[in-house]
Amino acid sequence: MGSTFGHLFRITTWGESHGGGVGVVVDGCPPNLDITEQEIQVELDRRKPGQSRITTQRKEEDQIQILSGVFEGKTLGTPISMMVWNKDARSADYEEMRVKYRPSHADYTYDAKYGIRNWKGGGRASARETIGRVAAGAVAQKILSQQSGVEIVAYVNRVKNLSFEVDPSSVTRDQVDANIVRCPDAGMAEQMIDLIDAARKDGDSLGGVVEVVARNVPAGLGEPVFDKLEADLAKALLSLPASKGFEVGSGFGGLEMTGSEHNDPFYSDSGRIRTTTNQSGGIQGGISNGEDILLRVAFKPTATILKEQDTVDVDGNETVLKGRGRHDPCVLPRAVPMVEAMVALVLVDHLLRQKAISD
Amino acid sequence: MGSTFGHLFRITTWGESHGGGVGVVVDGCPPNLDITEQEIQVELDRRKPGQSRITTQRKEEDQIQILSGVFEGKTLGTPISMMVWNKDARSADYEEMRVKYRPSHADYTYDAKYGIRNWKGGGRASARETIGRVAAGAVAQKILSQQSGVEIVAYVNRVKNLSFEVDPSSVTRDQVDANIVRCPDAGMAEQMIDLIDAARKDGDSLGGVVEVVARNVPAGLGEPVFDKLEADLAKALLSLPASKGFEVGSGFGGLEMTGSEHNDPFYSDSGRIRTTTNQSGGIQGGISNGEDILLRVAFKPTATILKEQDTVDVDGNETVLKGRGRHDPCVLPRAVPMVEAMVALVLVDHLLRQKAISD
Amino acid sequence: MGSTFGHLFRITTWGESHGGGVGVVVDGCPPNLDITEQEIQVELDRRKPGQSRITTQRKEEDQIQILSGVFEGKTLGTPISMMVWNKDARSADYEEMRVKYRPSHADYTYDAKYGIRNWKGGGRASARETIGRVAAGAVAQKILSQQSGVEIVAYVNRVKNLSFEVDPSSVTRDQVDANIVRCPDAGMAEQMIDLIDAARKDGDSLGGVVEVVARNVPAGLGEPVFDKLEADLAKALLSLPASKGFEVGSGFGGLEMTGSEHNDPFYSDSGRIRTTTNQSGGIQGGISNGEDILLRVAFKPTATILKEQDTVDVDGNETVLKGRGRHDPCVLPRAVPMVEAMVALVLVDHLLRQKAISD
Amino acid sequence: MGSTFGHLFRITTWGESHGGGVGVVVDGCPPNLDITEQEIQVELDRRKPGQSRITTQRKEEDQIQILSGVFEGKTLGTPISMMVWNKDARSADYEEMRVKYRPSHADYTYDAKYGIRNWKGGGRASARETIGRVAAGAVAQKILSQQSGVEIVAYVNRVKNLSFEVDPSSVTRDQVDANIVRCPDAGMAEQMIDLIDAARKDGDSLGGVVEVVARNVPAGLGEPVFDKLEADLAKALLSLPASKGFEVGSGFGGLEMTGSEHNDPFYSDSGRIRTTTNQSGGIQGGISNGEDILLRVAFKPTATILKEQDTVDVDGNETVLKGRGRHDPCVLPRAVPMVEAMVALVLVDHLLRQKAISD
Repeated sequence: MGSTFGHLFRITTWGESHGGGVGVVVDGCPPNLDITEQEIQVELDRRKPGQSRITTQRKEEDQIQILSGVFEGKTLGTPISMMVWNKDARSADYEEMRVKYRPSHADYTYDAKYGIRNWKGGGRASARETIGRVAAGAVAQKILSQQSGVEIVAYVNRVKNLSFEVDPSSVTRDQVDANIVRCPDAGMAEQMIDLIDAARKDGDSLGGVVEVVARNVPAGLGEPVFDKLEADLAKALLSLPASKGFEVGSGFGGLEMTGSEHNDPFYSDSGRIRTTTNQSGGIQGGISNGEDILLRVAFKPTATILKEQDTVDVDGNETVLKGRGRHDPCVLPRAVPMVEAMVALVLVDHLLRQKAISD
Repeated sequence: MGSTFGHLFRITTWGESHGGGVGVVVDGCPPNLDITEQEIQVELDRRKPGQSRITTQRKEEDQIQILSGVFEGKTLGTPISMMVWNKDARSADYEEMRVKYRPSHADYTYDAKYGIRNWKGGGRASARETIGRVAAGAVAQKILSQQSGVEIVAYVNRVKNLSFEVDPSSVTRDQVDANIVRCPDAGMAEQMIDLIDAARKDGDSLGGVVEVVARNVPAGLGEPVFDKLEADLAKALLSLPASKGFEVGSGFGGLEMTGSEHNDPFYSDSGRIRTTTNQSGGIQGGISNGEDILLRVAFKPTATILKEQDTVDVDGNETVLKGRGRHDPCVLPRAVPMVEAMVALVLVDHLLRQKAISD
Repeated sequence: MGSTFGHLFRITTWGESHGGGVGVVVDGCPPNLDITEQEIQVELDRRKPGQSRITTQRKEEDQIQILSGVFEGKTLGTPISMMVWNKDARSADYEEMRVKYRPSHADYTYDAKYGIRNWKGGGRASARETIGRVAAGAVAQKILSQQSGVEIVAYVNRVKNLSFEVDPSSVTRDQVDANIVRCPDAGMAEQMIDLIDAARKDGDSLGGVVEVVARNVPAGLGEPVFDKLEADLAKALLSLPASKGFEVGSGFGGLEMTGSEHNDPFYSDSGRIRTTTNQSGGIQGGISNGEDILLRVAFKPTATILKEQDTVDVDGNETVLKGRGRHDPCVLPRAVPMVEAMVALVLVDHLLRQKAISD
Repeated sequence: MGSTFGHLFRITTWGESHGGGVGVVVDGCPPNLDITEQEIQVELDRRKPGQSRITTQRKEEDQIQILSGVFEGKTLGTPISMMVWNKDARSADYEEMRVKYRPSHADYTYDAKYGIRNWKGGGRASARETIGRVAAGAVAQKILSQQSGVEIVAYVNRVKNLSFEVDPSSVTRDQVDANIVRCPDAGMAEQMIDLIDAARKDGDSLGGVVEVVARNVPAGLGEPVFDKLEADLAKALLSLPASKGFEVGSGFGGLEMTGSEHNDPFYSDSGRIRTTTNQSGGIQGGISNGEDILLRVAFKPTATILKEQDTVDVDGNETVLKGRGRHDPCVLPRAVPMVEAMVALVLVDHLLRQKAISD
């Protein structure tokens, strides 16, 4: 269970990291949207491993195929099925994983839950599962862009203890993609890359923060109580592998302020109601207010490292495990398109929900 | 929409702060559970306003009535409907809210979404809506306790910049309820109370952090992809009014570490597989691992203050607003039972889901 | 579980026949709809027992209260909570039901499922549960009428072996309500009433058919695969107590025809595409085609009779049971507003779903 | 929307009759179930076209591939993705469908709903969509068989006006599959085949009834109100292409009886509570009572015929359409495995729901 996300724009992902393939079914996409495999591939290429030395160097082709729901270049309104085939895996690489639990991976909890586990890789916990999310997110972003001019831009603004304040109102995807760490400041990017490189050489890994802004989101999206916009966004982003924290607007930082400092005063911008500050992060009472939606996600240092670690085997005997070959020193650059995709999936779902009750 | 939460243990809340009343329907509660209005009232009393000078002093009786689903003291398996009547409100108190938008409240976004709003109070955005959650959470906590011995304890561990490290493995609800700020350390509680008192006298408000631990949660709860345990918990907690941030385990703080420092080594505790550290916060790959589940929620300083603020009226004209009478200088003490309730609702839902697929 | 119905216009009913009360929460109703308790009461009065000698003569007041979601006569867009209080029941009437299972009631299956049962009445299986449905259906019918001019008219067109062919294109609710059996033909109504009267005097009961037409339903409602319009309607109507069969359009009767006789030829009605016949009952491929939607529901003879019947007690010992006091010789007249309500709930849900994907 | 079915055992089908392929994702299947492509293929072969002269002779290979969720022959608990590739379609066969609406097909309603349609075939309305249902149903049947010994057997018991009474307590799948019309009586089968053959030669089609029995279903499955077992079964079966009617137990036929004739008396069968008759069809108050579940589905005569028919083109001009090549004179034999699959999907979902609330 739990492989479906969304209420009206609903995606279902499937597939383990090893086995036939991975994919997604998108149900509820409005008809007559122009969409091509090429557009979706652009986003997948931003997600895929092997883009640079600072992320995992495992090569994946990840060529997307649209199997249904698109006809003569346009969506039919019926389910869009998309998939990527898995390559033959070298099982030998994984033989040790069959009997030993990797610390801070999902090996042990899958066994505890199901009593069985595809030990040839990370199963559903693999970042490979996010291929379907990113593909569906590309469709969602196109709808948002066409129907409301929404722009979603994510970027790395912290690696370990190196952080940089980005102006969310103006940052562009081109600036973000200009370097391999996806921090829109060239100088900071260089420092971050050096830091990750050092960890990589040490067989270790680093975490950090991806911040994301959604601009031009119309006021009125989100529901008052449980399906508050920030609640659905929190769920979406905490469902990404390795995420450990979430903030909207002022987040934990806002706790330094008093209420009178934190409240966002309203003003009239040529008749349009706006706020002079944006501690709310574009959401008030669970509903978008038309200001930029601003979120932050903490991603832990990747669990796959090359250092020797204490662990137990499947029978509960204590042992050690030492990673071999390639590891992923920093998931952040690849998390950027994943974060954008999840934000888009939430926004498009609420956009459709709002249309249902509007005149 | 969006007033329903949960997949198998499903609650639907209803009611505005002003109008007939507020309530909840709990569908999916297992049969034959002993439950009384008194047990539920205990939790509601911990949530209600007017408990002390540092929270809102508005008096609410909040006497719960069970209208269905319980027969001769036992649950029937059918929907449990519970409600609390609203008291007559003095509309005069709210007349100004009819025409002016309170900064960082939901007044404006409700109007933007619906084109109509119950201006006599906060509508669904009122903390009063959480009565239903807390009542349902009391039922959930009883199930968790009986079926698995789960204990959930929340507490205030930060007010503005005053913070205190609590030992989650041993903290008790009695320690938490021993003072009005619900921080389990008497000395720190005194400091926090003084800080809030000062803000109160200034007509201002403060925010902070509620941390929550769930002990004795069996390994195996949570679903691999979108319904990861931390994702559902994040949604649950971000759906509470005034919450701005969420952390599981190491959270944002864990970003200071490398992967080799952050990974939780496994060891064998007389045959039971455990971890020596708990950066994971009891959840790995979205599934509980049997360790304590540890979460933190940031609550912003309450938006209702007594200071004069810039705002606009419903026609977009700039104006000022000055709160009158009572305000809520710090939501944290009352948020404690709300946080416990939401955690319980998520855990019981996943407990039932897990039973469905177990032998 | 299972007390919630609908995807965007979502109702949750609660309450046993004995206990505090029964009610419904309607979530997803569009804002700014004018609605009053009086309008809803009209439908409840058509549903309530004691309207005539041919239905159950148990008196119920069934005065509806709106507890939330309506402000100054208009819907807020937030949950509409409505309820009716239960009267004090004379438990003595039900003492025998505590120990003996009534044949073809739900007593035994509730015990088998839950191991507990509110033996003071029919619990959730009581027709009293439909109060919430009819109240919610009144709201749904108003939306359908205002947004699309939809008219829903149900009527009794068969009692036991007496049947009458009604013209669905012209029948009115006034014609239906002109007699106590709710058959729009005065002569047939008299015969039906005599037949039911005879059964009543014999302490027995009769079943029959309620047919329902929905006129002015726009083309395009319904989803291609599982949420076909007729599938959702079938579920809605088979969820009514005592229903045993469902037909759309030609139904079982259409099996006498060949495909060439059964297909509905298209023609152009001044540019509007229509069909010359309507074997399809207004639905093709699961989607409305703009013709009248025509359905039939079979209701079994009511299980509550006054004759002596063989049964077992809760310990499995064979015994006999003889009903006392009042019984319900024919559920059909009261089923008419229930059927209209369920059809309205399905149609309004699909109307909102269609708006979500339309330009 | 509407391509997902089930609450805990949840399937999502995708694919048009023409395009890449068709498939299904099964989410919520318990882990450690032995399952092979061969077992699933057996059911698909019973569904596929071209099995005999009395169904469509279009040849489809329909070779199933399991893409995920099964590891070393056992289910993982994670989504099972299965698919069948489409063959190259001869578009020329469909060119006329691009501009003319086939009577009683979904061509017009899809255009009315979406403003676009894959005119190369029936799109989602094609019987080809049911491949995914039958594949998922094979998994569901295996679970039901292993966990509770449930047996589901469907059969044709009426073609046009030829009908035959089958003993549901003893009929076997071998008897059903012994002839091409899937009526378990050899003599009646011969008559039915002759009748269909005559229609086939005339370029026409026939409808009829598929009856289905589920034996050994434990008491207690189903939910009291909206998710009554018969309600979910009705939805499941009315979602099959060409179905027009549904009955449970006595159905429309039971209307001839009075309540005293129709009620099912309880008796004690060596301590087990049973009923002497089964007008209820194994379901009382929406919940299974342990007796055989007995249902009937009416399938209309197939819309695809070879005779000339009046229709309109996409611009609303009146015209005629004459089918060419192959048609499907009777869908009933192929509907048998579809009906079994849908019944299995409903039962397994409720079996898992019941486990969630049981001790």
